[in-house]
Amino acid sequence: MSATATSQHDVLALAVRAREASHGLALATRATKDAALVAMADALLARAAEILAANAEDVARAEAGGTPSNIIDRLRLTDARLADMAEGVRGVAGLADPVGEVVRGSTLANGLELRQVRVPFGVVGMIYEARPNVTADAAGICLKSGNAVLLRGSSSAASSNAAIVAVLRDAVATAGVDPEVIQLVPADSHDTVKALMRARGYVDVLIPRGGAGLISSVVEESTVPVIETGVGNCHVYVDAAADLDKAVAIVLNAKTQRTSVCNAAESLLVHADIADLFVPRIVAALQQAGVRIHGDEVFAAQDGVEPATDEDYATEYLALEISARVVASVDEAIAHIRRFSSHHTEAIVTEDQRAARLFTAAVDSAAVLVNASTRFTDGGEFGFGAEIGISTQKLHARGPMGLPEMTSTKYIVTGDGHVR
Amino acid sequence: MSATATSQHDVLALAVRAREASHGLALATRATKDAALVAMADALLARAAEILAANAEDVARAEAGGTPSNIIDRLRLTDARLADMAEGVRGVAGLADPVGEVVRGSTLANGLELRQVRVPFGVVGMIYEARPNVTADAAGICLKSGNAVLLRGSSSAASSNAAIVAVLRDAVATAGVDPEVIQLVPADSHDTVKALMRARGYVDVLIPRGGAGLISSVVEESTVPVIETGVGNCHVYVDAAADLDKAVAIVLNAKTQRTSVCNAAESLLVHADIADLFVPRIVAALQQAGVRIHGDEVFAAQDGVEPATDEDYATEYLALEISARVVASVDEAIAHIRRFSSHHTEAIVTEDQRAARLFTAAVDSAAVLVNASTRFTDGGEFGFGAEIGISTQKLHARGPMGLPEMTSTKYIVTGDGHVR
Repeated sequence: MSATATSQHDVLALAVRAREASHGLALATRATKDAALVAMADALLARAAEILAANAEDVARAEAGGTPSNIIDRLRLTDARLADMAEGVRGVAGLADPVGEVVRGSTLANGLELRQVRVPFGVVGMIYEARPNVTADAAGICLKSGNAVLLRGSSSAASSNAAIVAVLRDAVATAGVDPEVIQLVPADSHDTVKALMRARGYVDVLIPRGGAGLISSVVEESTVPVIETGVGNCHVYVDAAADLDKAVAIVLNAKTQRTSVCNAAESLLVHADIADLFVPRIVAALQQAGVRIHGDEVFAAQDGVEPATDEDYATEYLALEISARVVASVDEAIAHIRRFSSHHTEAIVTEDQRAARLFTAAVDSAAVLVNASTRFTDGGEFGFGAEIGISTQKLHARGPMGLPEMTSTKYIVTGDGHVR
Repeated sequence: MSATATSQHDVLALAVRAREASHGLALATRATKDAALVAMADALLARAAEILAANAEDVARAEAGGTPSNIIDRLRLTDARLADMAEGVRGVAGLADPVGEVVRGSTLANGLELRQVRVPFGVVGMIYEARPNVTADAAGICLKSGNAVLLRGSSSAASSNAAIVAVLRDAVATAGVDPEVIQLVPADSHDTVKALMRARGYVDVLIPRGGAGLISSVVEESTVPVIETGVGNCHVYVDAAADLDKAVAIVLNAKTQRTSVCNAAESLLVHADIADLFVPRIVAALQQAGVRIHGDEVFAAQDGVEPATDEDYATEYLALEISARVVASVDEAIAHIRRFSSHHTEAIVTEDQRAARLFTAAVDSAAVLVNASTRFTDGGEFGFGAEIGISTQKLHARGPMGLPEMTSTKYIVTGDGHVR
């Protein structure tokens, strides 16, 4: 923390340095980029002591400030977590280079050769909260996709992030990549977030990662194009034609396997035709797993179920808590989802092909699953190898974002003196 | 023009009606959508008298208000222009339906079947100026791509647009499509533009088409995601290894074939090694074609060439006017383009493979052409069949936007009781 806070001018200066360096990175071969990624992974391990010492400062500051223990847990780095971080970056070296991929191509009637080719965005801004591992993840993904990156982490992780960025910058330099492609934006004041949001022309895309408040404020205020990530009020709809064993397993997994993540289920819809059989069974199973249930009249008739309000249906609990409701039809389930969903992930459990087809066509979310847990909406599960976030918006990228989603395209058109 | 201007509430009400209707359109088959498009084209011809009468009102108002004749020409409809408009809409019926296209698909290790499928955005807002043909074009493209559309044209074309929208709504209804998918947003006040820009959650994407002022104000002020279109400060770079005959033909075509369009050339860069030979030749050719030249010292040494300022290099003339400069190398040409380009289209004229490769890799524009006129950056020329605009931004779509660019995607994941 410095005495004088970082100004907008300072942030733009970082962006200008990132832009300058991005020109070289955009032309770097995959071999160069992979060597830099391996050097980054090696350096995270070789200089672990330095990073852990910096992290200990952050943790001590958080403890002194009375930060809740679950937040401190997310902030804390260990040898094991550093090793995971390094493996994540090393893994990106093994992935295909999206830059230069020909998305489409043809020869036009007049002989012009047309190719649409993936190219880096240029300069990416990341704005994120607590976890310092995002610093290394984002740096690795941006480097492989040919983008310079401005990293604006949380002030609570300022020392950790500074140490990680110092290590990564040194590492890429040993591989012949300009270290200015990785920039740490000081977290000494909220003004640096504002500066990023106003850096149109300097920053090509902003990706906020964190809580709903952070994301909505960036989306509302930024003049830089934003990719919206993460908020997930995800539904599981158990259809009249569901296999109830599969339904119980999917609902439990979607709600309880990990509660703090955006692809966890937050709301359960059950077709009226099976409510008599299924409601008592799923209530018992959820309660046994420690889940608090907010239900409609049918659910609330069960012991221990609290009555649900519209606010419950709209809530992303991120906890052992779920809203639940009986619906008269697939159409009513779809209408409920239209009203309350955050358009992240919804699942239907059914053995009826017609119901599955209608649900997947009509539900307008980033991912729609049939007979599978909402927890599968994830770059790792989808086989992308790396994930920068899960987009819940419709422009550019929707759903888990891997390396190709971190690129734009351009058309390269080759002629031989062609004129119109 | 109404006595009380349309309020934000009114615009949101239109968006809500569009959203409701969009659900059905998203599920409509290609056959239904094509029937609606053919009905739209037929109706534009069958009800030509009505549309022309409304247009005559707009033209009379513009003339009475002293509007310049070139603007009135853009506003004026004729039987021939209406026929073109109808043919444009009919042509969209012949194009492939982007909705449902599987962009990628695989079966994961655990047996989950993954498909990424094109889906409509939902509700598209178009904000555009003078030409009433955009009304029919945009309605046709949005309908085929499964999107409801809010059309906010210019107040100068209010009567024409109202007549065209009335005809199109009637036509789609005859084909079984809810006419609420096409909405005219009143142009009685700038507040309706503001309302569209603030309609986040109601409108999925805004596409402004028109002058630089309109586009930049929408980009700066909108909280709805925007696709930026159109401004083109396009360069032609004539390399040391250029075929000078091709170079003259390309520069003349790019500058003079049509001057009012975004893909016309606005700036000429010439390699120093050929300046002695090429500069006098191209100056003579441009001057013979009536082009005013703003040049650096080398160009300004020729008769009739005015000295260029940085402002000239940054100007999109959209007229028989060009800036011109000699550069020492391909790298200097690239650096000049980085500084002044609007990232729309740049061309290199060269027979040197190395120079072409460097230029196409390093120039970060929507389209980069080799030995071809900048005028080819166009959806029609690229074979897209229809074009909603030319994106000059990096998110989502870049370059000419056809039907696929008017869609988002979603993941459909099918399992058999899969849990993590």
